[in-house]
Amino acid sequence: MHAPAPSALAFVPFVSVQNMMALVNTIGIETVLRELAAYIDADFRRWPDFEKTPRVALHSVEGVIELMPTADAQNYSFKYVNGHPKNVRHGYQTVTAFGVLSAVSNGYPLLFTEMTLLTALRTAAMSALSATYLAPKDAGTMAVIGNGAQCEFQAIAFQAICGINTIRLYDIDPQATEKAVRNLAGRGLSVLACSSSEEAVEDADVITTCTADKQHATILTDNMVGPGIHINAIGGDCPGKTELHRDILTRSSIFVEFAPQTRIEGESQQLPSDHPVTELWQVMRGEAEGRRDAKQITLFDSVGFAVEDFSALRYIHDKIGGTRFFEELDMLADPDDPRDLFGMLRRATL
Amino acid sequence: MHAPAPSALAFVPFVSVQNMMALVNTIGIETVLRELAAYIDADFRRWPDFEKTPRVALHSVEGVIELMPTADAQNYSFKYVNGHPKNVRHGYQTVTAFGVLSAVSNGYPLLFTEMTLLTALRTAAMSALSATYLAPKDAGTMAVIGNGAQCEFQAIAFQAICGINTIRLYDIDPQATEKAVRNLAGRGLSVLACSSSEEAVEDADVITTCTADKQHATILTDNMVGPGIHINAIGGDCPGKTELHRDILTRSSIFVEFAPQTRIEGESQQLPSDHPVTELWQVMRGEAEGRRDAKQITLFDSVGFAVEDFSALRYIHDKIGGTRFFEELDMLADPDDPRDLFGMLRRATL
Repeated sequence: MHAPAPSALAFVPFVSVQNMMALVNTIGIETVLRELAAYIDADFRRWPDFEKTPRVALHSVEGVIELMPTADAQNYSFKYVNGHPKNVRHGYQTVTAFGVLSAVSNGYPLLFTEMTLLTALRTAAMSALSATYLAPKDAGTMAVIGNGAQCEFQAIAFQAICGINTIRLYDIDPQATEKAVRNLAGRGLSVLACSSSEEAVEDADVITTCTADKQHATILTDNMVGPGIHINAIGGDCPGKTELHRDILTRSSIFVEFAPQTRIEGESQQLPSDHPVTELWQVMRGEAEGRRDAKQITLFDSVGFAVEDFSALRYIHDKIGGTRFFEELDMLADPDDPRDLFGMLRRATL
Repeated sequence: MHAPAPSALAFVPFVSVQNMMALVNTIGIETVLRELAAYIDADFRRWPDFEKTPRVALHSVEGVIELMPTADAQNYSFKYVNGHPKNVRHGYQTVTAFGVLSAVSNGYPLLFTEMTLLTALRTAAMSALSATYLAPKDAGTMAVIGNGAQCEFQAIAFQAICGINTIRLYDIDPQATEKAVRNLAGRGLSVLACSSSEEAVEDADVITTCTADKQHATILTDNMVGPGIHINAIGGDCPGKTELHRDILTRSSIFVEFAPQTRIEGESQQLPSDHPVTELWQVMRGEAEGRRDAKQITLFDSVGFAVEDFSALRYIHDKIGGTRFFEELDMLADPDDPRDLFGMLRRATL
């Protein structure tokens, strides 16, 4: 008996890591970051349209595995993402991710894609997007403390979206800083390797913290943060993991993605659960103030939210149509008669 | 510049629908069902080892999309599954699914697989497994009401695992019954097409209900259920969807997978939240009674639970090693230096 070829309904477009890299390099990373920021901005402006829930996390001694679902009336998305800080010691990534975009109307996946790279890109796009509402006017210099996998993406996003032209780097591991200096060369950025956090934050308009240790750390102390600074805090993103001294938080105007999640996972876990925070979508819609004045310290207490992944998946889905940057994956059983799943199995040859 | 090939760590074994069919047909469906039942039995017997949570469901007018995660100390799994009863009218499956098995220690996926077929198989294996604890001794005849995608899998599982030799079929659509009769021919089963539910349940030792309408239906009325019957209720599996008249429930000893989920989604949603039910793992471990006597009506109020998918994923992962029934999927970004994700992107050629 001859095995019939799967029907068109059986296939889901799949973007591999190789294809994601090719797609990003073809479009250009600056354009990708700007376009991702525009997709996130558009989705945050229609925030009430989304089903929102804190992510579903499984914590173990070694790390965390999370599922991050959300949906609007048309599309459903979820991301699988792990966070295992000790992975790097064994040659594995701290964070890997993949995700799916589906149609709400019939539940069928529309896109399956790697999201390790895509998460790095959307996180940087989200940071720079929020800074367009929160950073001081004419900000030119950004300190980046923690020069791991996220560092260069942050630098390039702030250059492309916010006009940052000087990057001051610090990491407890000088090799990480050297790697970032090397990777950021030749992009029109002035890049300085610093020997301490204190040196890195000198003259900085924006401070980005993106370290990976899963513990309560104090990457920034209170005396390091002068008036007018915007802090982009990326690394404190799960219970028990923070980067900023509590005193910085109480001096700052705090902006978050989704307060119920940030109060559990972000820097704000150090504060009482009724401490005032502003959700960014309200700022983007003009319903709340962003930066008020030149002296204000603003803090984006970033933990990453499912709507950002939804935007990123929607963007990739829009971009791959008509390109060679995806494969068709035989993911869905599609019998001729939907009720005849068994017949499909019986008729398949070995 | 030459794009380096992805490293071994980038790849995740993927079992397509075609490969799942080939694997099942190579092993033989009866053996697969028996082995799946053994994996589920083994996992249910170590029930306290699992992280358990009701599934995360997004309900829409058209249907539901669910994520079903669970984990033990070694492995994490989740399944994506939709349920859209009107899909069949447009040539789509009511239920499609895929899933992932991961290592808890580093969060890396070990297996990505289609689960539409695998869910049909594990659901049937779970039903037959529970019947080994609950059905009357020497049960030979099973009525199957609802002859859609799940029907033949149930019949073959009860034959392979419980020794059922006679199947009495009924569906409101005679074409569905004809399809099931055709598919079950030549397997050593006596198969009868009946013209009503009442006719189907005559002389039945086991009644399986597996209809697909998303509503409160009454597939079985109280007078149709005599003493000593085992009811295997598959179709009532989300809020607002039931198949049995409430009076049957109050006459039955009710067995469930995970009570907090079944009370929301199963037939038991018709009962007060403190109505006594027994979780099957307790029966399997000998900590609770299954069937007590020949007169008792037993009811497996089945909704499907994440641990069954965990067992099924573990089984497929064990089976594909050394076979040709999977592809390697470039799902995970794996830079030479885990902190150098950007460098990996920069060095990739178009």
